[in-house]
Amino acid sequence: MLEEIAEQPEALRRTIEAERGKVERLGAFLRARGINLIVLVARGSSDNAALFGRYLLEVATGIPVSLSAPSVHTLYGARLNLRHALVVGVSQSGEGEDINRVLENARAGGAYTVGITNEAKSAMVSLVDETLLMHGGRERSVAATKTFTGQILHFHMLAAALADGRAEHTNFAAIPEMAARALELRPAVEEIVERYVFMENCVVVGRGLLYANAYEMALKLMETCYVVAERFSSADFLHGPLAMVERHFPVILFAPPGVTLESTRTLLARLKELRADTLVITGDDEAAGACTRALKLPADINEFLAPIPYIIPAQLFAALLASAKGLDPDAPRSLSKVTRTL
Amino acid sequence: MLEEIAEQPEALRRTIEAERGKVERLGAFLRARGINLIVLVARGSSDNAALFGRYLLEVATGIPVSLSAPSVHTLYGARLNLRHALVVGVSQSGEGEDINRVLENARAGGAYTVGITNEAKSAMVSLVDETLLMHGGRERSVAATKTFTGQILHFHMLAAALADGRAEHTNFAAIPEMAARALELRPAVEEIVERYVFMENCVVVGRGLLYANAYEMALKLMETCYVVAERFSSADFLHGPLAMVERHFPVILFAPPGVTLESTRTLLARLKELRADTLVITGDDEAAGACTRALKLPADINEFLAPIPYIIPAQLFAALLASAKGLDPDAPRSLSKVTRTL
Repeated sequence: MLEEIAEQPEALRRTIEAERGKVERLGAFLRARGINLIVLVARGSSDNAALFGRYLLEVATGIPVSLSAPSVHTLYGARLNLRHALVVGVSQSGEGEDINRVLENARAGGAYTVGITNEAKSAMVSLVDETLLMHGGRERSVAATKTFTGQILHFHMLAAALADGRAEHTNFAAIPEMAARALELRPAVEEIVERYVFMENCVVVGRGLLYANAYEMALKLMETCYVVAERFSSADFLHGPLAMVERHFPVILFAPPGVTLESTRTLLARLKELRADTLVITGDDEAAGACTRALKLPADINEFLAPIPYIIPAQLFAALLASAKGLDPDAPRSLSKVTRTL
Repeated sequence: MLEEIAEQPEALRRTIEAERGKVERLGAFLRARGINLIVLVARGSSDNAALFGRYLLEVATGIPVSLSAPSVHTLYGARLNLRHALVVGVSQSGEGEDINRVLENARAGGAYTVGITNEAKSAMVSLVDETLLMHGGRERSVAATKTFTGQILHFHMLAAALADGRAEHTNFAAIPEMAARALELRPAVEEIVERYVFMENCVVVGRGLLYANAYEMALKLMETCYVVAERFSSADFLHGPLAMVERHFPVILFAPPGVTLESTRTLLARLKELRADTLVITGDDEAAGACTRALKLPADINEFLAPIPYIIPAQLFAALLASAKGLDPDAPRSLSKVTRTL
């Protein structure tokens, strides 16, 4: 897992090089075709990547996005009207049967279908109209890291291609370098995890474009450290879960610069009143100063490009915390790499 | 909270009587107008009701549904193309500023807007095209119960009106009686909560039409009992969180008869191998027999009508567990009835 985390800048670079032209042509084709809805279909870590895709695609393109509920198709046999829809399946292995079933249904119903996967020879590739591949090599660790950031990168490229403009969404070419700088936090993370060795519960908070990071970090903590990790947006957190916060219930927050920062600062102030233990991953000095511990990223990583560099310290945190707890992050209890559900 | 839980059959009856005709006319109007997308906008308990609405509306009508991310509108200022969309806001108080902002945006962008609320004089009512009201009286407890089931009921009525047919989705008139029968479980719940007084974590699992029940039960447990309650679909649960299951980490499952039952039985068998402690809310004898404890509902409550009768024992569980823990379910720490977020 640690090796694959470290491979990410290079994997991202290769994926941009290999896929950029194809994604641009796909965007031009879809703009000409005219789509009025984007449906994203995924499970597990890939579903967390899709959650990011949802925010970015809506913000960048103005096209409404729906995160598919696969059981609507696989269990209830619904036939959705998906003419003029783009349906994007996301799967590391390309072998998720339920995801593939939804893609088949959607294509039969008139949708244009795209698969984002790591496996060029998978079942998914054979049934979609277009495939977007990751080029970081096979992922061996059960906990997805480089395929997660590869999927996020594809959403960056797809949003840029569909939006055909607005600079803040389109300069994804800077991401591999940002990822490399995020990896420099490893010694800081190695030191900080010592404090959390006996943590049994926590909540991870993110909002907007970084909401998906909260889900992904929580999933890594559950998979590799058996920490009971809740995840919330800072907005929903105030609607009930706040009642659980106690001194022994740490809150981990993603706080990039940008439009979500004010609400995160408000939440941090409230958490301070409640004497909660807080760990923040941020490029903002004020947020870093308002919490118990901070992992500081460069201040110039803007919110639209933040998901990948901000998830890297979280991946390191999960992998190194597992080691500090005496667990093997590459061999989680009860899990296998491909999960079959229908 | 216990009083309001008990008021539900009568509240549901009154809402059907008062709103049925209006919802039928709305359905006919929308069918004639032609809609190609339904967007649901809500937070907290109301968002859990919307999650049910998402499944039921897609299955019953074939129209794709998207659960809105309010911050796309309120923080990122996106202008979504929502012509031919029906946008439904759900809010107990009708005063959620972010929900109302999304409704305003959507209406300005050409969508037809509907509000589901308990408050006829709220800000929401003044800005939507049509209002669907609940008629169960004011809700005083911070933990929503009768407004949650009132919202679920409105989704039943709306789906029936939009689908204009198929009996399994349309016989919602039976629900108040089913709710009354579910309330008869109170003595059984009162006895069973004793076993969970020292429970600190749990996971709540539901799938498909009952997935929202898992979210809602987890939220009630967090709000009133300060139990760290994870929630998952039985499909996603196998993707990582399963690794956390240990003897002291109980799993609560909703297992109604219907198409999801087989996957729930599979998960129960897996949990038994792992020696997990399981509590199941079910009408199925086999599921009841395969777990540590069961709350048995009548076997003839079909899956399409199950969400309301199945959430009632869960509401009772949260309220009675809070009492058994010596907590006051009507005065959760750190929370107020109306949460303001933007």
